[in-house]
Amino acid sequence: MPRYRVTLAYDGTDFEGWQAQAARPSVARPIVARTVQGVLEAALVKLAGDRTRVPVVGAGRTDAGVHALGQVASFDLDREMSGEALARALNGLLGDDMRVLAAQAAAPDFDARRDAVSKLYRYEMDLGPLQLPTRRRQAGHHRGALDAAAVQAAAALYLGRQDFAALASAGSSIKTTVRTVLRSEARFEAEPATGDACGRLVYEVVAEGFLRKMVRSMVGGLVAAGSGALGIDDLRKALAGGDRRAWPPPAPACGLTLVSVSYS
Amino acid sequence: MPRYRVTLAYDGTDFEGWQAQAARPSVARPIVARTVQGVLEAALVKLAGDRTRVPVVGAGRTDAGVHALGQVASFDLDREMSGEALARALNGLLGDDMRVLAAQAAAPDFDARRDAVSKLYRYEMDLGPLQLPTRRRQAGHHRGALDAAAVQAAAALYLGRQDFAALASAGSSIKTTVRTVLRSEARFEAEPATGDACGRLVYEVVAEGFLRKMVRSMVGGLVAAGSGALGIDDLRKALAGGDRRAWPPPAPACGLTLVSVSYS
Repeated sequence: MPRYRVTLAYDGTDFEGWQAQAARPSVARPIVARTVQGVLEAALVKLAGDRTRVPVVGAGRTDAGVHALGQVASFDLDREMSGEALARALNGLLGDDMRVLAAQAAAPDFDARRDAVSKLYRYEMDLGPLQLPTRRRQAGHHRGALDAAAVQAAAALYLGRQDFAALASAGSSIKTTVRTVLRSEARFEAEPATGDACGRLVYEVVAEGFLRKMVRSMVGGLVAAGSGALGIDDLRKALAGGDRRAWPPPAPACGLTLVSVSYS
Repeated sequence: MPRYRVTLAYDGTDFEGWQAQAARPSVARPIVARTVQGVLEAALVKLAGDRTRVPVVGAGRTDAGVHALGQVASFDLDREMSGEALARALNGLLGDDMRVLAAQAAAPDFDARRDAVSKLYRYEMDLGPLQLPTRRRQAGHHRGALDAAAVQAAAALYLGRQDFAALASAGSSIKTTVRTVLRSEARFEAEPATGDACGRLVYEVVAEGFLRKMVRSMVGGLVAAGSGALGIDDLRKALAGGDRRAWPPPAPACGLTLVSVSYS
């Protein structure tokens, strides 16, 4: 059965994240959540015709509300199609908050998650007393300015191979909280539309892998440092200490985008 | 009673335009539409306490789905408040798709609509086979490239004082369709996020006043010229002819933003 690889963009606002629900609907949870994986698999089942499920593997399991410009997914489909035809067919079945940007045949053992070498996430945080309403699904909001030098010093703390246990979600069952961050850059952009605003923080981070909510927790650390809530030394100690209760709260999901996934 | 002037930003997606419904709910139309004016007036009634309506005048009567970064409105309120206190109080009452960016006391005869000298509207149109899902509430979409020279030649047609009857909505009861356009500029921006896309058309237009749907019809003309559906001479003739049935269809509302209003 041919294997395919697709690049996906989605607006995470109306999705309960990437992952399809394993559990069946119950009285307590009568409706299966709408997930990116679930919507994509439902479209593929229609294309496959004779199967009840087409399992899809995604490079990054984005949380509820997180967007994607370049999510990558792999799956087997018992149809020989050109990448163009597959993309067109899927886009005809998907809603307008999810688009297949590209599709291609892949090697039979290609696995979008396992084979990913690194992922680039971007976080946008609007700064100032008010957030523009048209930005509220695309960016977090901090009600004031941030000290650029402190934010950049905090971003530098995340670089390299280290234990990110302090940024891990509660109740995770992962083997290790050690991850390797290859790039961690914060920049500030002016927001020309509103005289009153203090601009925007744009944070980009590349890592071989991420813990759940790790980028949002990283941004929480940037905001704590930039607002003066925590000094850089305190933040460094909190990171080294590995206690997630000592770490600032994660930034809201709406500001986060999975920009791209790299493969060797 | 003191008069105030406020600057508003809103995401037009979930509003049925600016204007409050004059008619009462009926069986045929059981729910009064949610309008920007209606929501603002409801908040002001709560601030006023003893009135059943606080009439608000808006500089531009934006259509359903049209956004604003700098709409201006005026009203009388029987309370002496600082601009800051008024903005804070209103923002506490409004939903997060509408924000008061600034408020100030105004002259007793200030009228946000009548006293406006000019208005700046911006239209964004994404170009290429697919629109990114995160852009679909903020921009129109044209499934291909546009010829930049033809678009710019079309934009130049709109400059100056002339009769825009060809761009007027059907059934308007206005006295004259002559308007004065002071600036009409189309530029093209690259969209770095998607390799496949053809970029974005950004059109900005300043006029002393606009007809209903006039900017969206102007953009319809730009797209017709840029895609080759109409030559520049045909478009010039259609504009001069004044027959709205000969004019290309208006671009969708979601790409349009009232950016700012100028006063003398």
